[in-house]
Amino acid sequence: MTTTELHLSAEPATTSCCAPVLRTVDPGTARDLARTFKALADPTRVQLLSIVAAGAGGEACVCDLTEPVGLSQPTVSHHLKILVDAGLLHREQRGRWAYYSLVPGALTALAGTLTETVGG
Amino acid sequence: MTTTELHLSAEPATTSCCAPVLRTVDPGTARDLARTFKALADPTRVQLLSIVAAGAGGEACVCDLTEPVGLSQPTVSHHLKILVDAGLLHREQRGRWAYYSLVPGALTALAGTLTETVGG
Repeated sequence: MTTTELHLSAEPATTSCCAPVLRTVDPGTARDLARTFKALADPTRVQLLSIVAAGAGGEACVCDLTEPVGLSQPTVSHHLKILVDAGLLHREQRGRWAYYSLVPGALTALAGTLTETVGG
Repeated sequence: MTTTELHLSAEPATTSCCAPVLRTVDPGTARDLARTFKALADPTRVQLLSIVAAGAGGEACVCDLTEPVGLSQPTVSHHLKILVDAGLLHREQRGRWAYYSLVPGALTALAGTLTETVGG
């Protein structure tokens, strides 16, 4: 997801004198962005992301994530998988437990697409 | 939504020697953020937002939004209402047509919450 950007710098359409000057994201990019936003469109996943980000060493063990959100480990693991699949979290198995960390630059890149939308 | 921020600067817990140092968003804030991300979790709405942002004068008439996304006006109006309700778009009725513009600072604030999550 880190390579997905809103492309607003395309040339305006010149084939019609009266067409509005629209420089829009292409459907494929819009689909990728929407998929990432969908991963964030859940309160538990927003909480999990912030807990991982604030964890010691920028990571958190799944064993420490169930209590803060008050959910069972299978449910928490399900939410974490969605964040991993969206390219926002990295998962590393260490013995019995899985550890999660932010994918470097993923959230910053996503934030960049939002500010590019408004031009800075 | 412009006042919603991730609060990651709370004091770490000091009541337990062994608790992980977690500074997390509270559930209410997580709910607000997730609601905004949900409004963005649709390819059509991402496209509409970018079209409005790129429109002349930073606005777009609903009459110019149906063709680029290839959907009926009622469907487009439904998507636009979700973006308005999320605090991302402003709607102004002028005679027959509604015009949409970005709510100043809304996307930038949302981007800020993402970069705050990763600490800059």
